[in-house]
Order: sequence, then structure tokens, then C-alpha cells
Amino acid sequence: MKLMRIGAVGSEKPVVRVDEENYVDVSDIVEDFDEKFFGSEGLARIRPVVAERIASGPLSRFEGERIGAPIVRPHQILCIGLNFSDHAAETGQAVPSEPILFTKSPNTLVGPNDHVRIPRGATKPDWEVELGIVIGRRTSYLDSADDARDAIAGFVLVNDVSERAFQMERGGQWAKGKSAETFNPAGPWLATPDEIDDVLGLGMWLDVNGIRRQTGSTATMIFDPYYIVHHLSQFLVLEPGDLINTGTPPGVGMGFTPPIWLQPEDVMELGIDGLGTQRQRVLAPRP
Amino acid sequence: MKLMRIGAVGSEKPVVRVDEENYVDVSDIVEDFDEKFFGSEGLARIRPVVAERIASGPLSRFEGERIGAPIVRPHQILCIGLNFSDHAAETGQAVPSEPILFTKSPNTLVGPNDHVRIPRGATKPDWEVELGIVIGRRTSYLDSADDARDAIAGFVLVNDVSERAFQMERGGQWAKGKSAETFNPAGPWLATPDEIDDVLGLGMWLDVNGIRRQTGSTATMIFDPYYIVHHLSQFLVLEPGDLINTGTPPGVGMGFTPPIWLQPEDVMELGIDGLGTQRQRVLAPRP
Repeated sequence: MKLMRIGAVGSEKPVVRVDEENYVDVSDIVEDFDEKFFGSEGLARIRPVVAERIASGPLSRFEGERIGAPIVRPHQILCIGLNFSDHAAETGQAVPSEPILFTKSPNTLVGPNDHVRIPRGATKPDWEVELGIVIGRRTSYLDSADDARDAIAGFVLVNDVSERAFQMERGGQWAKGKSAETFNPAGPWLATPDEIDDVLGLGMWLDVNGIRRQTGSTATMIFDPYYIVHHLSQFLVLEPGDLINTGTPPGVGMGFTPPIWLQPEDVMELGIDGLGTQRQRVLAPRP
Repeated sequence: MKLMRIGAVGSEKPVVRVDEENYVDVSDIVEDFDEKFFGSEGLARIRPVVAERIASGPLSRFEGERIGAPIVRPHQILCIGLNFSDHAAETGQAVPSEPILFTKSPNTLVGPNDHVRIPRGATKPDWEVELGIVIGRRTSYLDSADDARDAIAGFVLVNDVSERAFQMERGGQWAKGKSAETFNPAGPWLATPDEIDDVLGLGMWLDVNGIRRQTGSTATMIFDPYYIVHHLSQFLVLEPGDLINTGTPPGVGMGFTPPIWLQPEDVMELGIDGLGTQRQRVLAPRP
């Protein structure tokens, strides 16, 4: 299934995508795609209903409705840093010996085509196409990476928007440069694992103003999604609906010489095979 | 007012403390002390009701009921690192030029007298008595530290339990060493600002097995609570009910020579003037 949430900001309804034009409304049987949904076998519960509605209707049409993030604001947005060896190189940092964990404010989550706003005082706003993992159940102390398969609800395209000066020059920890409002576009859909042939073979790309800036593949991740979930579960308890951004391939703005930073009115477009595409216009800081 | 939540884990009810033995039940007019409560003028709404019930009843008696954290699991637990110059010195790190921000998993929140469990693989578990700030309204881009006064719902005693090996030796960012289950005892109460004469003059202490380990005062904070809220609001949007741990005074285990780490069956007791006391027994890792 491909879960989506559509409608105005703050009043999105949960639906399941059928194709480019049609969806199955599940808002009569699901409150929302939130911690409670994922934590109470919600995916298994809606699957037969969705199959039946696809077979015999009713279907609904998107007809240009706004697309929200496919999950409700999660308990946590966890991020893995420098998880592509060639990206680590472009930022001048060593390849990590284990996953680097940092966090973003959960309220950074926005829809895939919503605006991204540059924060006040920013000098180095940057982009990062990433594969996001959504956690499917309360998860702690997994015995192996293989066990992580059962803990994953699905995968989602995210843009881990970053402000490099806030991230690198304001105290040593990264959260300050990752947490501004609108800094985590997600979606258009959450693909359950059965929708993805090989999560370790997905092409990734990001354009700024129509110029290709990032090109990569999940094949070159240092730590794969299953290893990441297994690893994090040794340090904290993952909650259903938690989002994990798994790191970005080469081509971020800070990797160019000279670096390229986002400017107001820039347009970012990005995609991952099987997970759809996003498009964000960049806004100037709040006056 | 002194807000408390009492009852079994997961089914606490919101009450207001009258004195050591009595409370006013407000569970008939308040769902819980959560983001919605703080974000909808909940404090102002219950204040006259509480005053009336204190005057004419009914009052209820604690009678040994379990005390939970005084707020529901928040959107975020933000933490300020090295915010006491003598604590920075004992850890061998420089006094920061601006607040260092890191985060804890929100699901680390437990009651003030609940057990603290050492995570598997831990070698350096440690304690940190801290003043916690609870945010009272959605807050972004405050113009001044003085403006932060209106953004604060109240203050709370917290133990920012830490695993120093996970924090310092597992990738550079601190979140891994701060986020294990039970790592954020909070309470017994949230004191609204009018309950505290001078938040910059509160004594702080922590004992392990009856031996005084931390002694300090909020007077020696490098960045005061108002400055911290003002500063963080430049980087992210604070939500009502968010918790900010403001840093610890000297005397943590890593500051001793040789260092002293928490062991199973240790007992931590801690307090801050006006914010009550806590007592936690330390448990061995999960088998």
C-alpha cells in the first residue's frame, strides 16, 4: 500500500493511493496515520478493506488536492549523518565507524510540495534528498539487523533541509541547523515494504532550479536501513510512527567549490525510485 | 499553582497540589497537562476553579499514590549542555560561547520516584540534577530574553540521566547517551512562575546512596532560563508543553577522579528549592 494524507494543513485525511489519479478513502476506518495506527496493527487492519474498495469501489479522485506528509507529526525525527561515503568526503569529514545520530524537531514535518522557509539569520541553507524509514511498532534491543524488517512500517521520500552555519558553527551539536519550521518535507506517500522490490537499489536525485545537484543510490549507503534500526534500538526505544532520515548522497550545496546555498524563490525537486517526487519553493525568512 | 499527575503509569490524572497531603482534582475540567492544555490557556482556565476548590473543597488526599511526571510526554525534550562554568571545567570542556543544544527522546520521561534502568552495554551511567523549563505557548523568534517570561508555563525538577560512553564515544553527537528508557525523571510538580521567588537563586543538590555528589545553584548558570528560551526560539519553533533541561551543576560522576558510575541498586535522591525532591532506584539492564 501507499499511504497518503491529503487536504488542507492540519485537517488532512488518511487515504491509500491507487494510481496517479485515484485513491481509496480510509478516513471512515482510520483516525489518522499516527502512533496509535501503526502501533495497533493498523496496516494489517486496513489492507483487506483497501483491496476490497480497489476491486469494487468506491474510488476517489485527487483532483489537485494538497498532499500532506503521509504520517502525523511523529514522536521523533531521528537522522543518520554522513551515511554515504562519497557525501562524507564532499563535506570533508571522515567516514563514520557507526551510524551518527542526530535529531530534528518533529514539528519540521510538512507536505512534499509545501514551501520551505529560510530561517532568520541563515547564511547557508542546503538540501538533502533522503530515504526515510517509518517505524511500525514499539522497538527496543533488536537482536539483529534482520529483525528490523518486522519493525518497519514503510519508506518515504524526505528532504532533510539543513542550515549549515547553524549546524556546524553554533555549539557543536547539529540539531540547531536541522530544526527550523518547514525543514522536513515528507511524502508524497509512505510505501509499505512490499511495494519496494529492493530498498538497497533505489535511485535518488535532487534538482535546484532544474539543475541536477544530487544523484545517488541507496546501494551506496554505508549503513543500510535494517542495520540503522537495529543499531538505534540499542540506545533508545523507537515508537510506532517515528521517522528516521537515513542520510544523503553526494551533491549537497556545501560540497561545491564555492558552496551553493539556497536562495529565496529557488525551487527544489527531488525523488527516489518508487517513492514519488517532491517540489518545494524556497521562501525568504519571516519578516 | 503546582501541577501534578498521579496514578498508575499510563493512566495518571491531572491534579493541583495544595500541600504535602492534599490536592485538588482537576481531571473533570482538564483532559491532561499536555500540548493542548498549555496551548489553549489551560493554566488561566483552571486557576479560578482551583482557588475555589481550595477555599470550599473538595480536597483529596495523596495517600501514597504514585506520582507521574507532571506533564504528558512532550513534543520535544531539549537540553542545554555545559551550562554551569564549573561543570564544564569538571568535564574538561570549554565554557560555551552560546547555549549548546542537544535532545533526548521524549519517551524517556518518567515519574520522579520511578526506577531508572541502566541500558544494555552501558559502562558509564551518570546523574545530572537540572532545572527544567516547560513551554507555555507556541514560541518562535522571541525579540528578547525578557519576552521569554510569557512563553514559560513553569519550572520542574529533572534528572538528566546520561550514559557517558554512549554520549561521547559513539559518533560525536550526544543523543545516543541521553535517550535510553527511564532517563528523564521529572517532577514531582510543575511550579508556575508565580510560585518561584527567584528562579536565578535556587539551590540544587543530588545524593547517590546518601552521599552528597552535586551541590549548586541556578545562580551560577552561564545562560539563564529566559536567555535559553529566547535563544532556542531563533532556531526552531517551541511547542506548548515542550521540556527544556537547562544544564547541571558540578558533581556528576564523570567529574570525579577516578570517575564514579551508577551501579544497579544505587539510589539517587535530588532536589531543587521550591520544586520538591526525587528518589530513584537504579535497575540493572534488561536481561
